[in-house]
Amino acid sequence: MIPVRILGTAGLLPGRAVTTEELARKVGRDPAKVEERTGIRTRYWVEPGTRMTDVGVEVLRRALDAAKVAATDLRRILFVTATGGDATAPATASMIAGALGLTGSCDAFDINNACMGFLSAFDVAARSVATGLGPVAIVVVEFTSRGLDPSNPRPYLVLGDGAAAAVLGTARPGEGVLGVSLANNGTLPPDTGFGQSLLTGKLEKIHFHASRQDIFQIAVDALGSSTQAVLKQAGVKLQDVQWLLPHQPNGALLDAVVDGLGLDRAKLVPMVRDVGSVGCVAIPYSLDLLLRTRDVRPGELILMIGVGAGVSQGALLYQVGG
Amino acid sequence: MIPVRILGTAGLLPGRAVTTEELARKVGRDPAKVEERTGIRTRYWVEPGTRMTDVGVEVLRRALDAAKVAATDLRRILFVTATGGDATAPATASMIAGALGLTGSCDAFDINNACMGFLSAFDVAARSVATGLGPVAIVVVEFTSRGLDPSNPRPYLVLGDGAAAAVLGTARPGEGVLGVSLANNGTLPPDTGFGQSLLTGKLEKIHFHASRQDIFQIAVDALGSSTQAVLKQAGVKLQDVQWLLPHQPNGALLDAVVDGLGLDRAKLVPMVRDVGSVGCVAIPYSLDLLLRTRDVRPGELILMIGVGAGVSQGALLYQVGG
Repeated sequence: MIPVRILGTAGLLPGRAVTTEELARKVGRDPAKVEERTGIRTRYWVEPGTRMTDVGVEVLRRALDAAKVAATDLRRILFVTATGGDATAPATASMIAGALGLTGSCDAFDINNACMGFLSAFDVAARSVATGLGPVAIVVVEFTSRGLDPSNPRPYLVLGDGAAAAVLGTARPGEGVLGVSLANNGTLPPDTGFGQSLLTGKLEKIHFHASRQDIFQIAVDALGSSTQAVLKQAGVKLQDVQWLLPHQPNGALLDAVVDGLGLDRAKLVPMVRDVGSVGCVAIPYSLDLLLRTRDVRPGELILMIGVGAGVSQGALLYQVGG
Repeated sequence: MIPVRILGTAGLLPGRAVTTEELARKVGRDPAKVEERTGIRTRYWVEPGTRMTDVGVEVLRRALDAAKVAATDLRRILFVTATGGDATAPATASMIAGALGLTGSCDAFDINNACMGFLSAFDVAARSVATGLGPVAIVVVEFTSRGLDPSNPRPYLVLGDGAAAAVLGTARPGEGVLGVSLANNGTLPPDTGFGQSLLTGKLEKIHFHASRQDIFQIAVDALGSSTQAVLKQAGVKLQDVQWLLPHQPNGALLDAVVDGLGLDRAKLVPMVRDVGSVGCVAIPYSLDLLLRTRDVRPGELILMIGVGAGVSQGALLYQVGG
């Protein structure tokens, strides 16, 4: 076990609420059919030019309040996004640390692993705390609206903006990461992608390369194998896990995952209908919802299961402390 | 101490050698004066469109050879750059893992912390190994040439492209990170920056915001305070450190740092004259040069000292094993 405690979390939906009805009409589709097919009714989009730093600072402040931790007590800030940050350099994490007025009390850097970024950062934060460097803040912001184009309706109709944060610190007895299995399979054909203008010389948008059916298959396979790996590692059965937080890229895919893996729906925290597909924010946002709205008890197990472009995949099993 | 062993390293200068003479003539400056002022004679630039993945795989293969580690033994690949990677998503680390044919045997994600990225990644890799996840590869690639413009001669005349890699694994007794002090001061005025086209809506280039004098002052102060912090943490005196690897953004700044901190030149591995200012590649490239060209012995201490945009800063003291 990697001993670590989730001290506090927060979630935030920035910008304005955008309905599927509004978008479907704009691209000449039947709103009811799009809503049924995607399982998404609303998503939030920020105004162009909005800084991730500002949204990141706001959601981090809320997580610090929940954790009862002062910003000046932080030893590390990890900023996670798959939609580019506020600069190529410096790190957006630096700007967040600066906006909090931190001058030398903690380090700060950016992590990117597509929709798996939060689990990568959680692993880094847990290993940091376990080796004496904590508390650690993870700040996750996705502005997918930066990469959308009505002429490309598949991403346009599902993607949303969002933010979440978690503060991790010293564990109480019996608390922490019981198992973690993160992996990568870059030999699979590209599923989704967001180009780099510095390589291509042109402004880039988000594309879904694979068919809907192939993306479903990749996701179900990846989430399934990660789940098996982490349960085996921890010596735990799926039915003994109280809370399941799979990645939620859209409602239909969530259904396919739930059915494919035989997940008990009572253990889930569905949210994609109301927030859309929010990239690496999905898992930490649902973690925050879980901790704020469900009766999570000491000793219970939370299984976070992710998949993202790359293909990157992984699962992390966390035991709740007292 | 964080127990970890540097198993192998490599450095690589991609693309063509570009002389200061060629560039000075292009912008109408006196080559000899530019060379004297920058301390740089040559840098390497890749062709536009070159993928970091390809250069990263090449330098990683060399480091794996040096380490006598098979790619399939790796448990984690950290890709580090401050010049944007090959995609906004997925992570370039995923593409490197894919190009190596890795399918589920290791995870992979990207880290960005301006010129401090290698030290951030070294810290993450060390804590990963110390908590049971290793070997870990760090792959660092900077294509600063992507952000250059002859009309902006300050960056144009100093920046170069480069790559380096390090493979870290299980420590032998008495080997590892004796002290590490990484920090951030985002309240200082911006010194250098590379914009994000997804925020600004236009293609971006690298800018030096602060004056040469202010950058010198920020760098000397940051490198000095990081050095003091890490020596204090480790209970070691500067004169007891055998090898010094400061960030080398240009020759004059390196001189200012050496003089400002009272560093013994015999303990340095100067390289900026022949490779230019290579961002977060500078420290790992000089580490590779050190291990390949100097008589580094068991028990000796290597002090890596970094500073980058953000302002991010830090130092890491590594004790060489047997």
